[in-house]
Amino acid sequence: MEFLTGVKTQETLEISTLLTGDYEGKEVKINGSVHAIRDMGEVAFVILRKREGLLQCVFEKEFMEFDLKDLKEAATLEAKGVLRKEERAPGGIEIHLKKITVLSQPTEAMPLTISKWKLDTSLDAKLNNRAVSLRNIRERAKFKIQEGLVRGFREFLYQRGFTEIHTPKIGAKGAEGGANLFRFEYFHRPAILEQSPQFYKQMMVGVFDRVFETAPVFRAEKHNTKRHLNEYTSLDFEMGYLDSFEDIMAMETGFLQYAMPLLKRDYERELKILDVTLPKVEQIPMVRFDEAKKMVSEKYNRKMKNPYDLEPEEEQLIGMLFQEEYGADFVFVTHYPSKKRPFYAMDDPKDPTYTLSFDLLFRGLEITTGGQRIHDYRMLREKIAAREMTEEGMEDYLNAFKYGMPPHGGLGIGLERLTMQLLGEENVRETTLFPRDLNRLEP
Amino acid sequence: MEFLTGVKTQETLEISTLLTGDYEGKEVKINGSVHAIRDMGEVAFVILRKREGLLQCVFEKEFMEFDLKDLKEAATLEAKGVLRKEERAPGGIEIHLKKITVLSQPTEAMPLTISKWKLDTSLDAKLNNRAVSLRNIRERAKFKIQEGLVRGFREFLYQRGFTEIHTPKIGAKGAEGGANLFRFEYFHRPAILEQSPQFYKQMMVGVFDRVFETAPVFRAEKHNTKRHLNEYTSLDFEMGYLDSFEDIMAMETGFLQYAMPLLKRDYERELKILDVTLPKVEQIPMVRFDEAKKMVSEKYNRKMKNPYDLEPEEEQLIGMLFQEEYGADFVFVTHYPSKKRPFYAMDDPKDPTYTLSFDLLFRGLEITTGGQRIHDYRMLREKIAAREMTEEGMEDYLNAFKYGMPPHGGLGIGLERLTMQLLGEENVRETTLFPRDLNRLEP
Repeated sequence: MEFLTGVKTQETLEISTLLTGDYEGKEVKINGSVHAIRDMGEVAFVILRKREGLLQCVFEKEFMEFDLKDLKEAATLEAKGVLRKEERAPGGIEIHLKKITVLSQPTEAMPLTISKWKLDTSLDAKLNNRAVSLRNIRERAKFKIQEGLVRGFREFLYQRGFTEIHTPKIGAKGAEGGANLFRFEYFHRPAILEQSPQFYKQMMVGVFDRVFETAPVFRAEKHNTKRHLNEYTSLDFEMGYLDSFEDIMAMETGFLQYAMPLLKRDYERELKILDVTLPKVEQIPMVRFDEAKKMVSEKYNRKMKNPYDLEPEEEQLIGMLFQEEYGADFVFVTHYPSKKRPFYAMDDPKDPTYTLSFDLLFRGLEITTGGQRIHDYRMLREKIAAREMTEEGMEDYLNAFKYGMPPHGGLGIGLERLTMQLLGEENVRETTLFPRDLNRLEP
Repeated sequence: MEFLTGVKTQETLEISTLLTGDYEGKEVKINGSVHAIRDMGEVAFVILRKREGLLQCVFEKEFMEFDLKDLKEAATLEAKGVLRKEERAPGGIEIHLKKITVLSQPTEAMPLTISKWKLDTSLDAKLNNRAVSLRNIRERAKFKIQEGLVRGFREFLYQRGFTEIHTPKIGAKGAEGGANLFRFEYFHRPAILEQSPQFYKQMMVGVFDRVFETAPVFRAEKHNTKRHLNEYTSLDFEMGYLDSFEDIMAMETGFLQYAMPLLKRDYERELKILDVTLPKVEQIPMVRFDEAKKMVSEKYNRKMKNPYDLEPEEEQLIGMLFQEEYGADFVFVTHYPSKKRPFYAMDDPKDPTYTLSFDLLFRGLEITTGGQRIHDYRMLREKIAAREMTEEGMEDYLNAFKYGMPPHGGLGIGLERLTMQLLGEENVRETTLFPRDLNRLEP
C-alpha cells in the first residue's frame, strides 16, 4: 500500500529561498511564467513571473540548445541555471539558464501588455480580460494587500475572543426590508440572497457573545457608481455585553491598529509596488452626524440639503475637513438620524430621533456602518410596530430576543471599499477580483 | 474633539483571566447569561454562561438585596462578587455574589432545556430553535471546532505561499454544467448561484500560482440525505506547477497534519466537551478506485453494481476495510473513471478512461473531491467537443488557457462534512449553523 505522508519538498525554488539561501554560483531549478522577453542580440533576458515577484533569467544563445524563437511570452516553464548576483536585476540576482523545459504554451498573443509597469488600458478592458490583466504585477499586488486586510481582521478578532461563523446566504427574508433583494425560487418556495448577515450574527451573540464573518453579501441596488457593487465581501462582527456603543468603534480602531503593522510586516513588497502610504490609526476622531454637517456647511460655505443623510459630497468634505484640521485619515460620524437607520438600531435614550450608530469614513468615503442594536424584545417589537412593518418572516430572529439577549452591537466593513481607499483607487472595481454590477455579470 | 484610541479595557473579567490571575478572595466584576439556577434553600447556585464556558456563582439569600425570584434563566447580567477556590465548581473557582445588575430579561420560558449536558431533543427541534439550541454547551462547542478547522486551513495555506481570493457567487454559467444550479434574474439577465469557485480559482492560478477560498457554494440537488446540504462552506484550493497529481493529496495531508495539532492546542476545551478522538494523519493510504472496489467486493463478498461510481455503502466499506487493515481514518481513492468526472479533469495519460483525480474518504464518507486539471487550451477544447458540450458562456475561462496556464490541480473540502466526521455525528445538519436543504429555508 502506498501512503501520503505530508507536503512534498519541491526541487524548484521560490524567490525568497533563492534570495536568502547560499546559491551564488550554484545550479538551481526554477519554474514560472514568461512575463517578458528582452532580446539583446547575443543574449536575451527572460523575465519569469512567480508568485513572489519577478525573476530575471539570462538566455545566452550560443550555449543553449533551446531556440529563443520557441519561447513565447505567457509560456510556463521549468528551468535549470546558475544563480549569479546582479545588482541591476530585481532582488539583485539573476539565473543564467542552462536548460529549459516548456510546461505549457499559449496559443495566442496576449490581448494586454501585462509586462508594462502600469497597465495603460481602460478599466473595462482590464475587467473584460480579468484572467490576463491580473497577471500584471501592480494589479496582482492589490489583491495581496486585500488578503492582508482580511487576515488582519480575522487574527485580531480571534485574539479578542470572537468566534468565526458561517451564516446562510440563501434566506426567506432579508434583514433590512425588501427593496434591494435578489429573489429566486428555492424548491418551489420564494427565497432571497442575504444582503447582510445581520439577523444571524445578532442571534449568534446569544450563543458565542462575540462573532464575526467574512463572506459575500448581495444587494440588488440599481446604483451604478464608482463605489457600488451588487456583490461584495463584508467583514462583519457583532459583540455582546457592550458598556457603550463606543466599544464597537474602539474595537474597529483596534482592528485598524492591528492590520496596518501586519501589512507593513508581511506585505511590504506589495506596499512598495503600489507606493502606498499607510493611514494614521493611532487615534480616530469621532463627531456627531449633525455636528459634522454643520462643520462642513460652515467651513466650505455649503448649503445643507438633506438633514437626514450625508450626501457623498458631504462625506468627502468631512474627510477633507478632518484631514486639514486634525491630520486624520479616518473619522467616525456618530448618531445618525433614527429614520435613516434600520428598525433594529438602538435609539439614543437622550434623544430618540437619533441612534447610537456610526459610519466610519476613510479619506472621505464610508467604509463601515455600525451601531448598537436593540436587545430588548418588547422594545424591538414596539419599533417594528411603530414603523408599520410586519413581523412575518422574522419570528426566528425575534425568538432570540424573547429568550434573552445581552446589550450588543456590531458593524460591517466593505472589504473592496477599504482596499480602494487604502490604495487610493478611484473605482471600487479596481479592488474587486470579479466585480458584479448593473452591467457586469461576467467574467 | 473626542478620539478613539483603540480597544477599551473591560472591567468585567473573562473566565481565562479569572483562572490565571491572582483573584482568590478578591472582588471581581463579571457578566454572562444565566444558564441555570439551582436553588438549594439558603443558597442558590447561579451558573453563568460565558464565551469561554460556565462560571458558578453562589447566591447567598440572606446577604443579597436582590430577590432570587427576579432572576430568570436566560437573563443576562453584570455582577460583583468575591472569587473563591472550589474544587467541585467548573474550573475550580466560584464567585460569591455581592451585587447583581440585570442587563436583560427573557419574556418567556425557554423552549428547550439547554442547560442539560446533552440536549435530548430531535434534530428538527434543535434546528427550529437554532438561536436557543446552540446555547447548549455541547452544541456550541461543535462550531468552535469548526472554526479551528477553517483557521487551520487558512494558516497552513498562507504558510505554503497560497493567496486568499474572493470570487463571485453570482455568475452567468456554472462550472459543472447546468442541472444543479439555482437560477434567478439579475437585472433582467439570467444568472445562477455558483456551485463551486472552480473556474475562478483555476483562472487565478495563472495570476498567483496558488490560491484558496473559504466560502459558500450552492447546489440545487434534490438529494435529501444525512450528508447533503444545498448550501455549504467549501474549503477550496488550487495550485500550479504540479510535479504530479499526488502533490495535491500531499498538500491536503499537510493541512490535516497542521490542523489536528492546532485543534489540540487551541480547542482542547471543546474536544474534551465533545469527547473527540483526533484521527491519525501521519500517513494516509492511497488506493486506486478500481482496486478499492475490488478489495471491498472480495473482503465483504459484495457484488459490484456500478463500475463507474462509488455508492455510499461502498465508501463506508472502504473506510471500514482501511480502518481494519491499516488502522487508517482517512483514505485517498484515486483514478476515478473519466466519464464520472467533469470535462476539465485531466485524464490519465496511461489510460484515458481514468482521471488523475481523487476523493478523500474520512471514516467512510467522502469529504473532498480533487484532482489535476487540463491546462492545455487545445486539449481542453477537444474534451469539451468530445463531450458535445458548448463553449458558450465559458469564453472567459477558456481565455485563461489561451494565454498560458501552468500544470495545476486542486480540491474542495466540505467543511460541514469534515466537522461531522471529526465529531462522529450522524447528520451533516448537526454541524451546520443554519442548514439549507430541500425542506428547510429557515431560520
